[in-house]
Formats: sequence, C-alpha cells, structure tokens
Amino acid sequence: MKLVRFGDLGVERPGLLAADGTLLDAGAIVGDYDGRFFDEGGLETLAQAVAASDPRLVPAPAGARIGAPIAVPQKIVCIGLNYADHAAEAGFPVPNEPMVFLKAPNTLIGPNDDVRIPREGTRVDWEVELAVVIGRQARYLADEHAALDAIAGFAVVNDLSERAFQLDRGGEWTKGKSCETFNPLGPWLVTPDEVEDPQALGMWLTVNGDEMQRSTTANMVWGAAHLVWYLSQFMVLDPGDLVNTGTPGGVGNLQQPPRFLAAGDVIELGLDGLGSQRVAVVGADA
Amino acid sequence: MKLVRFGDLGVERPGLLAADGTLLDAGAIVGDYDGRFFDEGGLETLAQAVAASDPRLVPAPAGARIGAPIAVPQKIVCIGLNYADHAAEAGFPVPNEPMVFLKAPNTLIGPNDDVRIPREGTRVDWEVELAVVIGRQARYLADEHAALDAIAGFAVVNDLSERAFQLDRGGEWTKGKSCETFNPLGPWLVTPDEVEDPQALGMWLTVNGDEMQRSTTANMVWGAAHLVWYLSQFMVLDPGDLVNTGTPGGVGNLQQPPRFLAAGDVIELGLDGLGSQRVAVVGADA
Repeated sequence: MKLVRFGDLGVERPGLLAADGTLLDAGAIVGDYDGRFFDEGGLETLAQAVAASDPRLVPAPAGARIGAPIAVPQKIVCIGLNYADHAAEAGFPVPNEPMVFLKAPNTLIGPNDDVRIPREGTRVDWEVELAVVIGRQARYLADEHAALDAIAGFAVVNDLSERAFQLDRGGEWTKGKSCETFNPLGPWLVTPDEVEDPQALGMWLTVNGDEMQRSTTANMVWGAAHLVWYLSQFMVLDPGDLVNTGTPGGVGNLQQPPRFLAAGDVIELGLDGLGSQRVAVVGADA
Repeated sequence: MKLVRFGDLGVERPGLLAADGTLLDAGAIVGDYDGRFFDEGGLETLAQAVAASDPRLVPAPAGARIGAPIAVPQKIVCIGLNYADHAAEAGFPVPNEPMVFLKAPNTLIGPNDDVRIPREGTRVDWEVELAVVIGRQARYLADEHAALDAIAGFAVVNDLSERAFQLDRGGEWTKGKSCETFNPLGPWLVTPDEVEDPQALGMWLTVNGDEMQRSTTANMVWGAAHLVWYLSQFMVLDPGDLVNTGTPGGVGNLQQPPRFLAAGDVIELGLDGLGSQRVAVVGADA
C-alpha cells in the first residue's frame, strides 16, 4: 500500500493511493497515521479494506494538499555519515558504528510544502534520504529480522540542515537540523510488501533543475534493518517514529565552491518507487 | 500552583498539591498536563478552580504513584556544560553559546520510578538539573522577557547518561542520553508565581546517601530565560516541551576514581522549593 495524508496542515485525513493513481479517503475506516494507528494494527485494517474493495474508500477531493504521510512522530532519529562518498566529501572517516542524532519532530512537513530559511540562516543545505517509519515498539531487538518486522514502511525525506548552526555554533548537530520545515516527508509511506529491496533504490535530488545528488540505497554503509536493530539497543523506538537513514554525496556545503539554498529556489528529489517531492524555498516569515 | 500527575504509568490523572500538602485530583476540571493543556489555558483554568475552592478538586486516593508532572512531551531539549565547574571537571571550556542536544521523549518517568541500567551499560551517571516546561509556542522570541512569558513552570530532573554510549560510541551525545527511564521528572511542576527567582535555587544529589552534587542555579552560565530565548532562534518550542538546563559539577564520570550507578543504588536529588526525587536503580529487564 501507499499511505497518503491529505488536507490542510495539522488536520490531514488518512488516505491511500490506489493502483490506478486515484487518491482515496480512508478516514471512514481508520484514524490518523500516528503511533496508535501503527500500534493497533491499522495497517492490517487498511489492507483488509483494500482487499475487500470496501465502499468506504471513496475518492479524496481533487486538488487537496498532500501532507506528510505520517502524523508528527514522537522521535525523528537521524543517521549521519552513512554513505562512504558523503563521509569522504565531508572529510570524515566512515564511523565504526552508526552516528546518531535527533531532530525536533515539529520539523515535519509535506512533500510539496515550502521550506523556510531560518532568520539567521545563511547556509541551508539539502539531503535526500531513505526514511523508515517504525510500526511496532522496538526495544533490544534480537537481530535484523526482528528489525524488518518492526518497519511499517519507507518514504522519501529531505533532511535539511543549516550548516553554520550545525557545525559552527557549538556542540551537537541538532542545532542545525531542528529548524521549522526542515523535514519534508513523502509523498507516500510505502509498505514493505511493495518495496522489493529497500537497499536497491535509486535516489536523486536537483536544485533549480541542476542535479546535485544521485546514488542508490545500495551505497548505505548500514542498511535500514541494521539501523533499526542498532538504535533499539540504545533507545526504545515507538510506533510512528521516523528514522532518516543518511544522505549520499553531493550536499551543498561540500560543493566547490559551496552552494546553499535561498528564497526562490526549488528542490526536487525522489527515490525509486517511493515517489518524489517538489518544495519551494521561502524566507523565514513568508 | 504545584501540578502533580498521579496513578499508573501511562494513565496518570492531573492533580494539584494543596497548600496543606494534600494531593488533589483535578481530573474533573482539566485534562492531562500535555501540550494541549498548556496551549489552551489549562493553567488559568486550574488557578481559577483553586481560587474558587472548586468542589470538584477532591482528594486523590491515598498511596497513588506519583508520575512525571507532565505528559510525554514532543521534545526534551538539553543544555550541556552550563555550569562552569562542570565544564571544568569535564575538561571543556565554557562554550561561547549554549550547547544543545535532544533526548528521546519516552525517557520520561516519575520522580520515584526505577531507573534501568541499559543492557550493555557500564557507565551510567547522574545529573541533577533545573527543568523548564514550555507553556506557549516559542518561535524567534524577541528577548528574555518574552521567554519568561513562555515558561509554564519549573521542576526537578535527573538527566541520566550512559557515558560510554555518550562519549565512546561515536557521534552525538544523544546515544547515551536516550535510554529508557533516563529522565525522571518531578515530583511537581511549580508555576512561576511560586518561584521567586529560578536562578537562586539550591540543588543537591546523593547516591546511597553520599553527597555527589551540591550547587545552586545561580551558577548556571545561561539562565532559564536566556536558554528559552536562545532555543527559539533555532527551533520552535511547543507547549509541553521540556528543557533540561544543565548540571553542576560532581557527576560520577569525573570523580577520582570514576563512580557509576549499579542495580541496588538509590539516587536522591532535589531543588529548593521544587521537591525531591528518590529513585532506585535496577537492571535492564527488572
């Protein structure tokens, strides 16, 4: 299935993308795609409705805004330096084990919403990534098989950063990762049955039409299942949590010369089978 | 007011500590102490009920467990190295500006709940801190006065850490801060009208009766108002969010020789006027 949320920001309704491309409203069958939905078997309820051609699955209003495909999660966990070419361009060795940081959950926006440059921001940068959504609580998982069972689905995410906040303002990366609008997600949450191999997905990102990133999730140092297993040894992942699994080479900060985002820019990005985003960059108070 | 939540973990009811020490059930008047409560004027509703001696404020059942005084927040934002003596013992200069990291919100527990040693944990450490709860959305606050207006209250917090996870396992501090049970909060959320000066509160922490930390919030490099103002320039703070404002000297990792927590230990800690905690340390799967 391809889960979609549509409607105005903060009051999105749950939906599904049908095989023929129709956007269906699932709000008469399930609640919002939040932690409780995943925890209480919402995916199975939806799958049964699809299999039965449930008449309560009705077309969504034409032209509705597409939101992030999940509600604001409890956690956005991010992995740093998880592609060898990106670690190399950043001048870091590939870490011995995954590098983990957290991002404020209220950075989540839809796949076509505007990204805002923070008021003092001068070095805003892009990062196309494979996102993983947690489907059931993950605590001290035994192995990668258990981790795969804990994954509700996959999505496209842009893990935006303000590099001066992140790298030059002291301390942890979080400071440059948590600015409002810095986590466009979607358009879809694609369930694992429709992703043949999450470690073989082509990915790309353009800015104003210029290709800046092109890679594949085959280049991840640690795959999605390993990351979920690993994280569960340090923290309890809860249903609805989001994991940004790291970006390949080609970020703006490491171009020669560096290239950063400014109001008026358009970022497009996507992963094979997971859809694509198109976001406009605007000022902090647009 | 002193807000309290009581009852079993995950289904706590809102309460108040009356002037005579009675624990009152406020669940007939307001909902849980979560983001919506603060955002929708819950504190004012409670204050009116207290002023009117509302008969719906009834004594809580005797012997009820005391939970964290707020629901699991959207964010737990932490400040590092915010006491000069702690920075010195850690071998770091005082940063030029606040050092910020995030902690998984599901680390929140009550002030007398057990703290669990993570399965691979060998260097679990304590940190008594002043906690600040956000009462209204804080985005690009103009100054510290605006920041004070955004604060719903103050509480005692123990910002537990696993030092090997935090410092030796690569990357950000988050990895050693987000283990389950690592953020005991409370017993009370004390509203600002009852805290004459949040920057003049004595604080202390003992392990098995041995005094390990003793300081005052007067020693914070950056006070609570400055921190809330500062954070609002980088991220949007939402009602119900928690800020751990940093710990003074005396953590276990920096004792000579180092001292860490083990199952069977008892940690007690408190801040003047904000109450005290007593937590037992247990194994990961106790």
